[in-house]
Amino acid sequence: MPNIDDYIFQLDVDKGEHIIATYYLESKDFLAAAKAIAIGQSIGNPDVRTQRDSPQIMRDHLAKILDLRISLTSKQKGFLKIAFPIINFNIEEDGVTQILCMLMGGQMDIDIINHCVLKGVEFPKKVLDNFKGPKFGMENIMRRAKAIDRPFLGGIIKPKTGITISQLKEMVKELLEGGVDFIKEDEILGNPAFCPFEERVRVVSEMVNDFSREVGREIFYTPCINSDYPYFLERAKFADSCGVRAVHLNFWAGFPAYKALRDLDMKNAAIFFQKSGDKVITGVN
Amino acid sequence: MPNIDDYIFQLDVDKGEHIIATYYLESKDFLAAAKAIAIGQSIGNPDVRTQRDSPQIMRDHLAKILDLRISLTSKQKGFLKIAFPIINFNIEEDGVTQILCMLMGGQMDIDIINHCVLKGVEFPKKVLDNFKGPKFGMENIMRRAKAIDRPFLGGIIKPKTGITISQLKEMVKELLEGGVDFIKEDEILGNPAFCPFEERVRVVSEMVNDFSREVGREIFYTPCINSDYPYFLERAKFADSCGVRAVHLNFWAGFPAYKALRDLDMKNAAIFFQKSGDKVITGVN
Repeated sequence: MPNIDDYIFQLDVDKGEHIIATYYLESKDFLAAAKAIAIGQSIGNPDVRTQRDSPQIMRDHLAKILDLRISLTSKQKGFLKIAFPIINFNIEEDGVTQILCMLMGGQMDIDIINHCVLKGVEFPKKVLDNFKGPKFGMENIMRRAKAIDRPFLGGIIKPKTGITISQLKEMVKELLEGGVDFIKEDEILGNPAFCPFEERVRVVSEMVNDFSREVGREIFYTPCINSDYPYFLERAKFADSCGVRAVHLNFWAGFPAYKALRDLDMKNAAIFFQKSGDKVITGVN
Repeated sequence: MPNIDDYIFQLDVDKGEHIIATYYLESKDFLAAAKAIAIGQSIGNPDVRTQRDSPQIMRDHLAKILDLRISLTSKQKGFLKIAFPIINFNIEEDGVTQILCMLMGGQMDIDIINHCVLKGVEFPKKVLDNFKGPKFGMENIMRRAKAIDRPFLGGIIKPKTGITISQLKEMVKELLEGGVDFIKEDEILGNPAFCPFEERVRVVSEMVNDFSREVGREIFYTPCINSDYPYFLERAKFADSCGVRAVHLNFWAGFPAYKALRDLDMKNAAIFFQKSGDKVITGVN
C-alpha cells in the first residue's frame, strides 16, 4: 500500500486546479491534526487506509498540506495551508455547499484539534468564473442615486416589526423627504399577517418610484425577503417585478441561498447581504 | 412615550404564542445585554425608542424577558429566557430562516455581550405543526431492515472520493455480502465527473434493490445529495425515483434546506442529517 506521507506534503500545487485554504490551528499534535484535516476532508479516514487508497487517488484526489513534514512536527499552533483538488466536485451544482463542507467539515469534530479556524481561501479562476459576482456594484448604485459628491445615505425602518402598512408608508415618506438613497427593512420583518410582504412591497415601491421620478435620482428601497426555500426566491421575483432597487437576505437563509438569488439575475434589484448572527461562524464582531 | 421596562419583563407568557429561547449570557452589564437581545431581536434598536414604539407594539411584538428586572441587575453571567412572539412572522414561509434569525441574530454583534450561546428552545404547537418531522423514524427503518433483535449495521464508503463507479460497485458488493443495513456515501462525494451522481445512483440502487429482494430485507443505500439549491432537491427526486431508501444532506446546505427536502415528501427515502462542520454553531464536538 502506498505511503500517504509521500503524497500529502507538497510545497506547490497547480493553483488553477485547487482551492487553497489557510487555517489557524492549535493541537498538541499539530502534524497529526494537519493530516486529519487534509485526509478527512478529501479521501477518507485520517488514520485507516484501505486497499483502495491507490497512488492515483492520493495523487489526484487527496488534499495536500503545503508545507514540509518536518516543519509541522515541533509545532503546537500556527497557520496551515491546505490545497483541495477541485476535481473532487462539480463546481456549478455542488457549489457553495460542497466548498464549505470541504473547507469546514468534519475536522472541527476531531479530538486532536483543540482549535481550528478558517482564515482565508484562494479560489482558482475556474471556480470564481462560476459565480456571477455583483451585478451592479456600489459605483453603479451611487451613480444611479446621484450620490456622486456626497455620501450614499441610508435609513432603516424602526420599529423593525409590529408596524402596519400605513405606518410603514408614513415612515417611508419621512425618509424620502429627509433625502435618503437607501431604505432598508430590517431582518426581522418577514411576511407577518399585519404587514404582508406582497402588499407592502407593492404599496411602498410605487411610492418610492414616484418620488424617484420626481427628484430624478433612484432610491434603493430594500424589502427584506428573508425566508425559507423557495419563498425567498418568489419574494425576490415579486419585488423585482415591482421595480424595487434591492432586496435584503440575511445569512441565516444559508450561504447557498445567495447563489440561487444571484442566479435569478434580477433586472432592477441589487442584493443586500445582511450578516446578523454571523458571529457564530466568524467569532468576531 | 411608554416605558419599555413596563413591557419587557414578564414572568409568564402565552406558551402557545411564543418561541421561548434559553441563552447562556456573559456581560458586564447583564441587564442591558438581556434587554439588547429582547429588543434588538424583535422591535428595534436596543437604546433608541421612536415615537412609533407604541404600547401596542411593545405589548404584542416586543420579545419578553422571563424574569424580574431586579434579578438581572447584579448578575454578570447566567441563563436567560426570552419569549419571541410568533405573531412577528409567517411560520410556514419565513420558516427556519426567520426562527434562526430571531434567535441568533444581531445580538451576537453587540459590544456589551461578551459571550452568548443559545442553549435551548421551546416551540409552541402552532410552530411544530408546521414541520412534518421524520416520515419513517428509526423504528420503521429497523423493522424494514429486519434489524429487530440485532444492531442496525452501517458501513461508509471509503475512500470517500476519487473512486469510479465500478470501484463503488465492488465496495457496495462487499458491504452487502458483509451484511450491512445502511450504506452511506460521505459528505465529500457530490457530483464529480469521475463518479457522476445520476449514473452511480442508478447503478448502485439497482444492485442494492436486487440484493434486498433476494435476502428479504430492505437495505438503506444513502447517496450524498449535498449541493446547492435547487440541485439537492433534483438529486433527492432522482434518488427517490430509483427506490433508494435514504438520502444524505450535510448541514452546510443550510438549515432551511432540510425543510425543503422534507416537504418533497419522498416516497421511499428517509433523510439522513449529517453534521460535519456544525461545531461552528454548537461549539462542541
